[in-house]
Amino acid sequence: MPFQFESVLVTGSSRGIGFEMVRQLANLSCPPKYIFASCRSPDGEAAKELRDFASEHSNVIIIQLDALSNDSIQKSAVLVKEKLDNDGLDLIVNNAGILTRSPNFLDVTEEDMMRVYKTNVVGPFQVIQAYHSLLAKAGQKKDFAAILNISGTLGSCEKSNFGGLYPYAISKAGMNRMTKGLSCELIRDNIMIMCICPGWVRTALGGLDKARLSPQESVENIVKIIESMDKDKNGIYCNNTGQIIPW
Amino acid sequence: MPFQFESVLVTGSSRGIGFEMVRQLANLSCPPKYIFASCRSPDGEAAKELRDFASEHSNVIIIQLDALSNDSIQKSAVLVKEKLDNDGLDLIVNNAGILTRSPNFLDVTEEDMMRVYKTNVVGPFQVIQAYHSLLAKAGQKKDFAAILNISGTLGSCEKSNFGGLYPYAISKAGMNRMTKGLSCELIRDNIMIMCICPGWVRTALGGLDKARLSPQESVENIVKIIESMDKDKNGIYCNNTGQIIPW
Repeated sequence: MPFQFESVLVTGSSRGIGFEMVRQLANLSCPPKYIFASCRSPDGEAAKELRDFASEHSNVIIIQLDALSNDSIQKSAVLVKEKLDNDGLDLIVNNAGILTRSPNFLDVTEEDMMRVYKTNVVGPFQVIQAYHSLLAKAGQKKDFAAILNISGTLGSCEKSNFGGLYPYAISKAGMNRMTKGLSCELIRDNIMIMCICPGWVRTALGGLDKARLSPQESVENIVKIIESMDKDKNGIYCNNTGQIIPW
Repeated sequence: MPFQFESVLVTGSSRGIGFEMVRQLANLSCPPKYIFASCRSPDGEAAKELRDFASEHSNVIIIQLDALSNDSIQKSAVLVKEKLDNDGLDLIVNNAGILTRSPNFLDVTEEDMMRVYKTNVVGPFQVIQAYHSLLAKAGQKKDFAAILNISGTLGSCEKSNFGGLYPYAISKAGMNRMTKGLSCELIRDNIMIMCICPGWVRTALGGLDKARLSPQESVENIVKIIESMDKDKNGIYCNNTGQIIPW
């Protein structure tokens, strides 16, 4: 069965889950026509693996996008629009995100709170704003267009712990609220949106030692979720095996 | 029965729910010994009613506190500590908050998102940080100390609409996550924390025409909730009649 989305944007794709997502999508037996792999510094050292990979896969197009800069988000949408010619964009994976660790809530700084919120909530929101017309165009021609927000179980308000990740956990609750709220508005343009926890993954963000899942295992599961995305799942919050997480 | 908290800080108390809260607490038959009524501009036009009221109630002490400025939050805690002499602070009502309206999610600006988050989430978080030692001191001597965060039902992730209040709704989900997460940590210092939706109240923030409740009605209910606060209610999210709201 061909992959259901012909064009995909993956943010934060120079490493971790984002890079693994690009790798697995490109290696599908019937891969997307366009995989827009965005990252903050396409020319930087951290993106070398992505550059090498893209040089061997003509459907992987590296795009500069810094979730902290709306200007860069807007510019990336102009570039993607040019590449797509008259087609819309089928899927966005809002993956770019950061976290900060604090042993105690008294140590959390305003700078941490604001930077994490801007990257994890405002950035993905601005990506959806900037790419809305491209998604709506795909929504007109296809069964639907889609947005997958990479959240985390720590964003669940049922959780009573923070695991030292105060700004991250609070920001992911915001991302979840944003997802659920937009699910009602975007569906009018035939765009569905959902959020997912990728699990605790051995990445620079998740921690390289203790985390349970390899990026490969996590992304294999997320790709299955993407393959099974449909409008019935609009507005849900689930883990990487598709199980619903309480808000 | 005497009011269970001897000293109370109410933020955002120059108008709306905050001012009405100060008024009703001061008019209790057995009122708190200290009501610290904080607002951004104690000398401004907007605080005239509060100044007049305080001039007639010696237990109402006006304190400068701008939720957007951690410096002002820290300074306010020093002043309150001096006034309390060797006592702790029994209760904080984190009421200061703002909202912005946008007809469509495409109109929401980064400035709105960041300013609303800073005021509605980071500010209350910093208030809790700055007053933590005073609350913990009360927690040692009394049955418990307490924090009441004024949230809103729009912060519930079960809600699929925004009512045009995108940054506000997203920020209140963050406030809820913060409340639930801190409930686990603060209780070690015998401080309980919960959040409440005051209802849709006729204030400058809630709108003066359509809102259902008068500030007086809403705050009468909230004062009842405060009178019934206990450690069993640590970490809950309820409306102004005490009914639990789904996260």
